[in-house]
Amino acid sequence: MVHGPEGREKRILVRRDRSAQWLDLRTALRLGSVARGAAAERATVLAAALAPCSTSLALQGGADFHDAVAAVLADAPEAAVVTDPELTNALDPTSYRDFMVFERHFSFGYEWQNKPVPDVMYELPVSYAGDPLSFIGPGETIPWPSYSERLDYELELGIVIGKAGTNLRPEQALDHVLALTIFNDVSARDIQGREMAGGLGPSKGKHFACVTGPLVTSLDELPGSGLAMTARVNGEVWCATTSAEMVWSVAEIVAWASQGEVLRPGALLGSGTCNGGSTIEIGRRLEPGDEIELEIEHLGVMRNTLGTPAGRTWWPSARERRDGSAETHFLT
Amino acid sequence: MVHGPEGREKRILVRRDRSAQWLDLRTALRLGSVARGAAAERATVLAAALAPCSTSLALQGGADFHDAVAAVLADAPEAAVVTDPELTNALDPTSYRDFMVFERHFSFGYEWQNKPVPDVMYELPVSYAGDPLSFIGPGETIPWPSYSERLDYELELGIVIGKAGTNLRPEQALDHVLALTIFNDVSARDIQGREMAGGLGPSKGKHFACVTGPLVTSLDELPGSGLAMTARVNGEVWCATTSAEMVWSVAEIVAWASQGEVLRPGALLGSGTCNGGSTIEIGRRLEPGDEIELEIEHLGVMRNTLGTPAGRTWWPSARERRDGSAETHFLT
Repeated sequence: MVHGPEGREKRILVRRDRSAQWLDLRTALRLGSVARGAAAERATVLAAALAPCSTSLALQGGADFHDAVAAVLADAPEAAVVTDPELTNALDPTSYRDFMVFERHFSFGYEWQNKPVPDVMYELPVSYAGDPLSFIGPGETIPWPSYSERLDYELELGIVIGKAGTNLRPEQALDHVLALTIFNDVSARDIQGREMAGGLGPSKGKHFACVTGPLVTSLDELPGSGLAMTARVNGEVWCATTSAEMVWSVAEIVAWASQGEVLRPGALLGSGTCNGGSTIEIGRRLEPGDEIELEIEHLGVMRNTLGTPAGRTWWPSARERRDGSAETHFLT
Repeated sequence: MVHGPEGREKRILVRRDRSAQWLDLRTALRLGSVARGAAAERATVLAAALAPCSTSLALQGGADFHDAVAAVLADAPEAAVVTDPELTNALDPTSYRDFMVFERHFSFGYEWQNKPVPDVMYELPVSYAGDPLSFIGPGETIPWPSYSERLDYELELGIVIGKAGTNLRPEQALDHVLALTIFNDVSARDIQGREMAGGLGPSKGKHFACVTGPLVTSLDELPGSGLAMTARVNGEVWCATTSAEMVWSVAEIVAWASQGEVLRPGALLGSGTCNGGSTIEIGRRLEPGDEIELEIEHLGVMRNTLGTPAGRTWWPSARERRDGSAETHFLT
């Protein structure tokens, strides 16, 4: 975030090798253009086109964007350094789909629904789509929707697609992954349970808010052995686990998601909740105002406060169940 | 579609009261600006900003966009008339969610999954999210993904959001609906059945393709009593029904979708398959090359041909089921 003449503005910040020094990409590009003889106003326009206020839009620039980042990291003017920046969500996803690949979590989830674990969980990575427009960032208040009395966090690994791909094999897939990030698939458990009895979604149980992390860390900066994952509520550790316990790997998740579809730059794939990474499976309960702190090794810390429940506006009136002859409607 | 120096280009076309006369919105705006004294090049830039190649982006222009449409309809230059245009999908949705509100269809669906109809279907409109980036238009070939042997169409009513809204009541909701359109939620039944045993989604069963219609017809041009809905395959009528048989109304669907969320201009809400509006419930089967023609009264006709199955690239290798001690992975 920077302050400009039109208010606060999001900027893409880059840094090399987890150094403490952040660079404002747009400023660095602008100063570079000026140094090469561009007129000041044109340099501003060109830099804004290549480094927009959206990571997804930037990634859609393809190699032109990645080359620009590399050039800035190789030789950035001192004036582009940002000291102590306010970090918000590093990714505004193009699309978002969530998988469920941590076995202890999904086993609990089926038990919670009074169902046995279905065989398909061991046959392929299952997923559902969410709303990419519902994302907020670290530091923002998580809205508490009127239709829920039970909110929950879900500590997940977020997989960020950097390069378009389709019908990928696992051995090709990691080349299309830009980075990993922290992901909180905020859940309204009561409505989620009700709507999932219908076998679709979840939908209202999820779409009111998602949170992604302050950093996207590229794969070449990460150990292949797994990352420590921690959840704290009001400072108390409620979950401490590892990303090493995935039934399907990042490469397999990406490959399967890409079958018959084009994965686009900026797409986010969630791993599903890590083992122990929500309150229902540990018998705890969140309250309005609680501070949720999710941390993943090398991916930073993501801190959010839960809002207070919104007042009820409207709830559908149930239809009389007559199996085959329910009352019907069209526009109203 | 128009032909320009950079190839074929999508344009927004408008017409008044279902007249035969289409107007190219951008051309009309450009000529209007020139007539009011704008320089030709500036008029081109201004018209392209207000009437981009995307209906969703245009709708995000708010009242500025709607006022521009009204002005063009009131007084359009003859040179903006387009004769016999090639109509493609009228909407590239901002987001997409599908409901399931036709009782005979959903009753069949649960029977197909060997389940009783859950009570929640009569308590509130349930839904799942899909991929807004998977949309194609009339005339385009529907891709047949490698992982399916059973493709199906779903004849649905598409509800197009025109104005942002949140926590709406049904009596406010229609004011936020721009129009209705034809919607085909193309489905891969075999993988859909497998993945829905996991209780999430559907996902791979749906995300490879969706089709929206050639027209978006505003509510003030539609009768409130219901619209005739027809599906034809290779010219033969496979479904003839009506939109009047919805358990939840358009207003209720929109109101429920908006609880705790911001519905944005360009969002698409599907009604779910109309009664008899897919092949599984009528015991028929589609083959590669079949022509699917979906028609809804006042919303036009949408014609697509099914492609041929893509060659298999990769399929996940099953995990040995050991309940609690599956083999685990991280990146690879």
